[in-house]
Amino acid sequence: MSRRSTGDVPQLVEKARAGDPRSVARLISLVEDASPLLREVMAGLAPYAGNAHVVGLTGSPGVGKSTSTAALVSALRAQDMRVGVLAVDPSSPFSGGALLGDRVRMQDHALDQHVYIRSMASRGHLGGLSWAAPQALRVLDAAGCDVILVETVGVGQSEVEIAAMADTTIVLIAPGMGDGIQAAKAGILEIGDLFVINKADRDGADQVRRELRSMIGLTERPPGAWLPEIVKTVASKGEGIDDVVAAVEKHREHITASGELEKRRLRRARDEIEAIAVTALREKWRGVHENAALDELAAEVIAGQSDPYAAADLLLESLES
Amino acid sequence: MSRRSTGDVPQLVEKARAGDPRSVARLISLVEDASPLLREVMAGLAPYAGNAHVVGLTGSPGVGKSTSTAALVSALRAQDMRVGVLAVDPSSPFSGGALLGDRVRMQDHALDQHVYIRSMASRGHLGGLSWAAPQALRVLDAAGCDVILVETVGVGQSEVEIAAMADTTIVLIAPGMGDGIQAAKAGILEIGDLFVINKADRDGADQVRRELRSMIGLTERPPGAWLPEIVKTVASKGEGIDDVVAAVEKHREHITASGELEKRRLRRARDEIEAIAVTALREKWRGVHENAALDELAAEVIAGQSDPYAAADLLLESLES
Repeated sequence: MSRRSTGDVPQLVEKARAGDPRSVARLISLVEDASPLLREVMAGLAPYAGNAHVVGLTGSPGVGKSTSTAALVSALRAQDMRVGVLAVDPSSPFSGGALLGDRVRMQDHALDQHVYIRSMASRGHLGGLSWAAPQALRVLDAAGCDVILVETVGVGQSEVEIAAMADTTIVLIAPGMGDGIQAAKAGILEIGDLFVINKADRDGADQVRRELRSMIGLTERPPGAWLPEIVKTVASKGEGIDDVVAAVEKHREHITASGELEKRRLRRARDEIEAIAVTALREKWRGVHENAALDELAAEVIAGQSDPYAAADLLLESLES
Repeated sequence: MSRRSTGDVPQLVEKARAGDPRSVARLISLVEDASPLLREVMAGLAPYAGNAHVVGLTGSPGVGKSTSTAALVSALRAQDMRVGVLAVDPSSPFSGGALLGDRVRMQDHALDQHVYIRSMASRGHLGGLSWAAPQALRVLDAAGCDVILVETVGVGQSEVEIAAMADTTIVLIAPGMGDGIQAAKAGILEIGDLFVINKADRDGADQVRRELRSMIGLTERPPGAWLPEIVKTVASKGEGIDDVVAAVEKHREHITASGELEKRRLRRARDEIEAIAVTALREKWRGVHENAALDELAAEVIAGQSDPYAAADLLLESLES
């Protein structure tokens, strides 16, 4: 056991960095399963992370996310880049994932050993975007991916959470889905660095573009901030995909120069550290082996002997002793 | 200032309990605004909370939530109950609320001083269901409400969060909205204690009922657990509303007898205490007046000198010193 934990992880990291897909997959599994080796894995990856450009893709069901992702992978591979794909399934917290069928479209790339593809459930046992997603990103990053595409369906909060993880966020829209104005209402206007109108050979593409442009124009942003671009594509035919890649690169250069990239990454690291610390505290507070302080405090609140704020104070005091 | 903080709160609580709507409104505002008096308010309410039955209402837009809520308020008032309504707006975290127009339908009850109506944004600055919602519930509860209706649009996570706050969760469905099967997929089947098919005079109501019944039958539940009921209503005409009230009462009796109510309330108190404690820690970690430990740790992670787990350990150690 101790031999495993001191021997295997460095070797896995080394092999992953050398481009071995099975080692990458094994590291992600260790991370996803919250293996006892998790901490060793994360420590082993730390020196190598921070180079990948993380691109989030979001949009309503049917907009062509998987097709667009596959087309983007092809375009990036043509530039000889190493690509990671993290497909976050928008399963309900209860019902289990449903969209794995879409993954079939990625089979073109399944045998390319410079493309790592991974699906994960969108909601972990702690709620919120799978807690393992940032760590999986870290594995792909340390393994030497130049670009990591994170694909998720834009429902509820997940699109906002994706934007928080990504360096560049692409919002996909298709004409004729009643999506234009509604998309803006749902808050995606604020998260999109790049809007891609897919299925642009359909009627209404120009209308969607006009609406988007007008709404982008109406959005307040600080001086010098990135002005979101709009690109039209027909992903199923590969049309416009190079324009998307070029726009992502332009955005990357802009936020690198402006310092925004550094700011986003700092914020992301802060969120990640905090989430891990909070999870550790929750486990402690709820731990069956501990004195279950939280249960006692909750019972006092229900009995009207205490209120939640006073109880929270006591909970925090218990940390300091 | 000190005179205010020691004098006004007990008086406000007393007046709220005596049925003064303005005092109830003032207490909720103090809570929503995270006033410096917040802790005093919560401590002052503690002895009086725990009597209200909290009923969550959720469903897709257009299903008739506001109309149903208004009809339920009328039915409960006819039984001489004090009623609180907390309408949680499903605004995006960025774009601001949009559904306030619906509130107009509640005007029938606006002058009834045994009905307290309050709208709040669904997403607080910390993400998740407005952190103030549980505290607002506590105010309405302590003010002597027999029933509190919490109404929210079923999008994304909010329906699950509502279910976590409610003693009884009502899921509203309407025929002809392509809602039946989809609703189940979105995870609401698991949260509904009671399914209300509103607009039941429309075609397809029986079909929706059959689908629901079949899906409820397929859901696994422990022996002795509540079997969700299905009620048909035409809320705009008041039809079936008494059946809903009766079914809520039946559910309340069932979960009281089985101990499930106590379990739900314990869980809710635990979540609330924990959320407050975590918020306090976050403020400490991010505080501008503190040493901003989190920023330094994040910078180390980005530089590859540390990993998020090691950084989280250091963050937690800083609490113990």
